[in-house]
Amino acid sequence: MKDLHSTGLILTNGILKIIDQQKLPQVEEWLTIENPEQAFAAIKALKVRGAPLIGVFAALALADFANTNENQEDIRNTAEYLRSSRPTAVNLMNALDRMLATDLSKEALREEAYHIFEEDVELCEKMAIAGAALVEDGDRILTHCNAGSIATVGLGTAIGVIIKAHQQGKNIHVYVDETRPLLQGGRLTAWEMKKHGIPYTLICDNMAASLMAEKKIDKIFVGSDRIAINGDFANKIGTYSVAVCAHYHGIPFYPVAPITTLDKECESGKMIPIELRKPEEVRGVEGHFGNICWAPEDALVYNPAFDVTPVDLVTGMIIDEHFFSQQQLKDGVLKTL
Amino acid sequence: MKDLHSTGLILTNGILKIIDQQKLPQVEEWLTIENPEQAFAAIKALKVRGAPLIGVFAALALADFANTNENQEDIRNTAEYLRSSRPTAVNLMNALDRMLATDLSKEALREEAYHIFEEDVELCEKMAIAGAALVEDGDRILTHCNAGSIATVGLGTAIGVIIKAHQQGKNIHVYVDETRPLLQGGRLTAWEMKKHGIPYTLICDNMAASLMAEKKIDKIFVGSDRIAINGDFANKIGTYSVAVCAHYHGIPFYPVAPITTLDKECESGKMIPIELRKPEEVRGVEGHFGNICWAPEDALVYNPAFDVTPVDLVTGMIIDEHFFSQQQLKDGVLKTL
Repeated sequence: MKDLHSTGLILTNGILKIIDQQKLPQVEEWLTIENPEQAFAAIKALKVRGAPLIGVFAALALADFANTNENQEDIRNTAEYLRSSRPTAVNLMNALDRMLATDLSKEALREEAYHIFEEDVELCEKMAIAGAALVEDGDRILTHCNAGSIATVGLGTAIGVIIKAHQQGKNIHVYVDETRPLLQGGRLTAWEMKKHGIPYTLICDNMAASLMAEKKIDKIFVGSDRIAINGDFANKIGTYSVAVCAHYHGIPFYPVAPITTLDKECESGKMIPIELRKPEEVRGVEGHFGNICWAPEDALVYNPAFDVTPVDLVTGMIIDEHFFSQQQLKDGVLKTL
Repeated sequence: MKDLHSTGLILTNGILKIIDQQKLPQVEEWLTIENPEQAFAAIKALKVRGAPLIGVFAALALADFANTNENQEDIRNTAEYLRSSRPTAVNLMNALDRMLATDLSKEALREEAYHIFEEDVELCEKMAIAGAALVEDGDRILTHCNAGSIATVGLGTAIGVIIKAHQQGKNIHVYVDETRPLLQGGRLTAWEMKKHGIPYTLICDNMAASLMAEKKIDKIFVGSDRIAINGDFANKIGTYSVAVCAHYHGIPFYPVAPITTLDKECESGKMIPIELRKPEEVRGVEGHFGNICWAPEDALVYNPAFDVTPVDLVTGMIIDEHFFSQQQLKDGVLKTL
């Protein structure tokens, strides 16, 4: 059995391991995933996160399950079970659909999971090159949440663009939104910037607009959880706020995503369901670093996991190796993919 | 000696006490202020906060000092010392200027401090009535930071409007920005809403734009730390982001402030100095509830305490009992006050 390596997921000697993203950046701990229940729990608890990574991870977890249980009904049920761990993640749906489209033999499932892994690496490389072509020497780039190499099994999506531009020798500086409530920017993106030696500044989400007003942001790259056929897209809560502010200040704003993020069944952003998460996340912070509640313990809370940014606020979109302008998106180019 | 009472400051039997706002909402602890050093430290550590409250507090602390030390040079030096605790707070400057304009006798200083207190109560009432006239039954109101009754010695500024509208029997719902990094919204505004029995929902700052897109915000009221003569104003970091998003969604946006917040020397927002605070506040949270760092400990951070919102994004401004439209502000009405 072939070994697989990425920043946040490895397969060695048939053992599937993931880095526990909830413990980063303080602790780099690898978890062994031995059954679908552990895989489900890891996705649910955001130990594994990032739309592309979740898809690859679920495929490998299903292949691993099939390795010891060849009952096709059990395999199908397990796929449905894994699917229910994060209903908004289209990559997860697609990856599992591909797995179920095989003959369900353990060999075919393993082979398909490997393909899904390798395709993600190649896709990241393509996106990174396409996106980095937009980055100029000296650019100050804002990013939100974490669309990095631990959100995929390759270079990442939005952060793949940043890493590639850095690798190309462009002198860039990255402003990292901390991304409340789960702080993926402050914890993960900051950690990745440091790991790659890319100069960065951490900010609270509400400071981005001020930086824009001070002309300290040249470009914005973000990831995407789901793209509708009209060019609207869903991403981590707070992305829409960044997009509105970017629009007001005339700053180019680009989502970067693999084509697997495109949901052809979804006509517009209005159709994207938004998961609501538990109030404790907003009343304080919870994590490996500790659990704190600073608000009244009975405070009513609104805590959507995602928001939807309409195509009107998108300067252009990088999908795989393609760059599409807002006009192309509005003209329906996504229907042709 | 007359007793004084407000939500966050009391004077009984000549003893000056403040509620430690850093410990709210978990603990309601009253601190006795016995000398200028304790007053300075309380302002610096945000135990006392809110532009109007700081002004009243510093005046009372100076009067208290003069009660036992009648040396005029010492009184002048103490005023300068208190002034340096928060250079952006124009109310602090004005209150101390008024104190220094007396004959510096302990009687005159005490009398002037009482006047400053009582005028703040009356001003809050006037602002609350003027602002509440803009609130309609059923309004969903967004506020940022804490411009409440513990930021003043009266009803508050922006939150005074909310409290007054509630007292008038209007059925309102308040969305409270948590206000990173110091969480004045999540800690203090939420606590005040609860205390006054006003229905509210706590959100992360980056969720406000989504609520606006969903047409769940009808009006926005915020406080102000300093108003320039052209109508630009400085307020807690994140206010500008709210203003940009409100503008995009066509939602009325109103700063509420006493006239003491107006800095007639300041021609535009560009002239307002912005205090930068320490990086630890953005790398995690610090407070009575605990100290946590979730980001890489060496992360470079940008942490401005305030931002500036230009008059172009202001629907209208409540100053004392007056309401001024954006057009009036642009026409220079503030010069005439």
